[in-house]
Amino acid sequence: MRTQVGIIGAGPAGLLLAQMLHRRGIDSVVLEARSRDYVEGRIRAGLLEQGAVDTLTEAGVADRLHREGLVHQGLALRFGGREERIDLAGLTGGKVVTIYGQQEAVKDMIARRLADGLPLHFEAADVAVHDIASHRPRITWRQDGQEHALDCDVIAGCDGFHGICRAAIPPADLTVYDRIYPFAWLGILSRSRPMSEELIYARHAQGFALATMRSATVSRLYLQCAPEEDLSQWPDERIWVELATRLGAREGELEVGPILQKGVTAMRSFVTEPMRHGRLFLAGDAAHIVPPTGAKGMNLAIADVRVLVRALEAFFAGRGEALMDAYSATCLDRVWKVQRFSWWMTQLLHRYNGEDAFEERVRMAELDYLAGSVAARTTLAENYVGLPYAD
Amino acid sequence: MRTQVGIIGAGPAGLLLAQMLHRRGIDSVVLEARSRDYVEGRIRAGLLEQGAVDTLTEAGVADRLHREGLVHQGLALRFGGREERIDLAGLTGGKVVTIYGQQEAVKDMIARRLADGLPLHFEAADVAVHDIASHRPRITWRQDGQEHALDCDVIAGCDGFHGICRAAIPPADLTVYDRIYPFAWLGILSRSRPMSEELIYARHAQGFALATMRSATVSRLYLQCAPEEDLSQWPDERIWVELATRLGAREGELEVGPILQKGVTAMRSFVTEPMRHGRLFLAGDAAHIVPPTGAKGMNLAIADVRVLVRALEAFFAGRGEALMDAYSATCLDRVWKVQRFSWWMTQLLHRYNGEDAFEERVRMAELDYLAGSVAARTTLAENYVGLPYAD
Repeated sequence: MRTQVGIIGAGPAGLLLAQMLHRRGIDSVVLEARSRDYVEGRIRAGLLEQGAVDTLTEAGVADRLHREGLVHQGLALRFGGREERIDLAGLTGGKVVTIYGQQEAVKDMIARRLADGLPLHFEAADVAVHDIASHRPRITWRQDGQEHALDCDVIAGCDGFHGICRAAIPPADLTVYDRIYPFAWLGILSRSRPMSEELIYARHAQGFALATMRSATVSRLYLQCAPEEDLSQWPDERIWVELATRLGAREGELEVGPILQKGVTAMRSFVTEPMRHGRLFLAGDAAHIVPPTGAKGMNLAIADVRVLVRALEAFFAGRGEALMDAYSATCLDRVWKVQRFSWWMTQLLHRYNGEDAFEERVRMAELDYLAGSVAARTTLAENYVGLPYAD
Repeated sequence: MRTQVGIIGAGPAGLLLAQMLHRRGIDSVVLEARSRDYVEGRIRAGLLEQGAVDTLTEAGVADRLHREGLVHQGLALRFGGREERIDLAGLTGGKVVTIYGQQEAVKDMIARRLADGLPLHFEAADVAVHDIASHRPRITWRQDGQEHALDCDVIAGCDGFHGICRAAIPPADLTVYDRIYPFAWLGILSRSRPMSEELIYARHAQGFALATMRSATVSRLYLQCAPEEDLSQWPDERIWVELATRLGAREGELEVGPILQKGVTAMRSFVTEPMRHGRLFLAGDAAHIVPPTGAKGMNLAIADVRVLVRALEAFFAGRGEALMDAYSATCLDRVWKVQRFSWWMTQLLHRYNGEDAFEERVRMAELDYLAGSVAARTTLAENYVGLPYAD
């Protein structure tokens, strides 16, 4: 078997890459270790930058996104008993963000690929990459009891943080930047009316909280917790009380509903450099992880894919490898700006145990400054809706 | 002896306060522990915000400042081999900063006060404050072998970080916020043409450097160094080589000249809350210290004095103590924003030993973002020229 681009991972990065390549007449095969059900049910990020929506639209996989996605013109910050709205659209010349669950985007792209009759293999076991430094890299895997091999011109490693692709690069050729935060998020999905039409980010003496949503009837709510938080210590009742307190919920603002899902999300900043080794290109979480505070994970994956598609288009059109050679540096420029923003949002809004009192006051002053400065609010807004793409 | 306002300290805060009170018909006596020569020769900050210049102008002590001060419309950031200019005036609707040595402003105000025949006593020994929690606080000191006492309505503690006023407040009534940075500045004053017409702030792998000036023929240059740096290890030759390297000086850009003064400046963020105890009001360095990176020390002192003058004017006009009661909170609102900005400039531009690689990259990304974002450059500019006053 052979293809032009072997894509490992059927998350947002891999599926979007396959779709965008297909529209440019470039063949690919997508391999996914998990089942379709698992991938479609995996709850992850749910907020798309303006540019990410535009990219999915151009790729022809945004019909349902435009029907069902919730467009947000702003967000709220609550701190010290105050609420300040960040007018995202007003501060960025009309850019917005759209709430649409990552798994919904994944479902849309899987359906599209299968309807087009294009290769997408779930439950591919023991996926391995070979000869990645050569011009003829190869992927092998097992499926239905059989061994398979796929010769490629290029391999795209879209298999996430725990995937096999980054691990296939000789460690000596990679530089890793890693920061693990001393807290995590306890997240719930609840069948209840969202607290507000827009997101609420709250800084509170008891820790950070975030009120977001999946739809008009499903809320997504988060509480800062310990990295090894014991969920058995968090009966539903305690979660709701804590949410109400930290979010500063007014009478009737926070509707209590059945909790559909409960989990702990670790907080990490991680970057690997470069994002390419020979003919293996890493995209999305395979190359970098951001803490969820800035809602950037899926958006950064989409930005990587845009850069990779342009590079591969040039390559397969015989215009050489210059854009492939620039891939890593082009992506990393955005990656580091997004890491900075995600780190900044995280440290601004979370409580650090044993934090020194000076830093605590500096953070409160920053929120106060933000509330009073159009320029400062604009820096938040322009990062939140997404900095312009390089292309 | 009695007066309305006893002012301890003949630095910029004390002298400006005395002058502004005088113009409002309020009597004061200024006491200074040091000699006139010492105070007038003490080299300190040299950059005035737009509002500080306006305040000195309104106070009638800015004639020479307007003749000799160097008006700057912008500043330069150098990092990673790049230079980015921050167009202060363009980004803030025309606000600028003015280079004018603190000791020059001090000379002007001393000359003015003496010419007006108003009380200003140098070399006041063993200054002490008494009954500060009462309505009749008192200052005692020794001069020319005699004991003196001054009954006041109010005492203004403008005697700097090491002064006696803050120390006179019961420690249990104060909260102190303190951060000592793991580096200092080696500063020189040199008879040489300034490197550029505007300030150059440089981030370099070997540490921060700053090129500023006192006049068209006198340069003020700084190098990040260790807090206990041994000046004997820094012959002039080494200083110039290091400056040229860190500042990325092009051919002929950095003129070498005789070094007139050499010293090490500690880097500290310090705030005491509240800034008032009974009838004792702290202003300037007596209440807070900022690291010099943001050039805010004298500017913050002037901002405090503006607030105190309004409060005292209301009090002596019989309009009550509401503004005196609000003094500390009003000042601290600005103090913390300025602390945040000074901390931000400091951490952005300095090298931290043993810094983790992630933070190093985040700082470079922040400089890169700053270079590309009007909003981000505006946040720097609007803080650098001075946030609006509360009044």
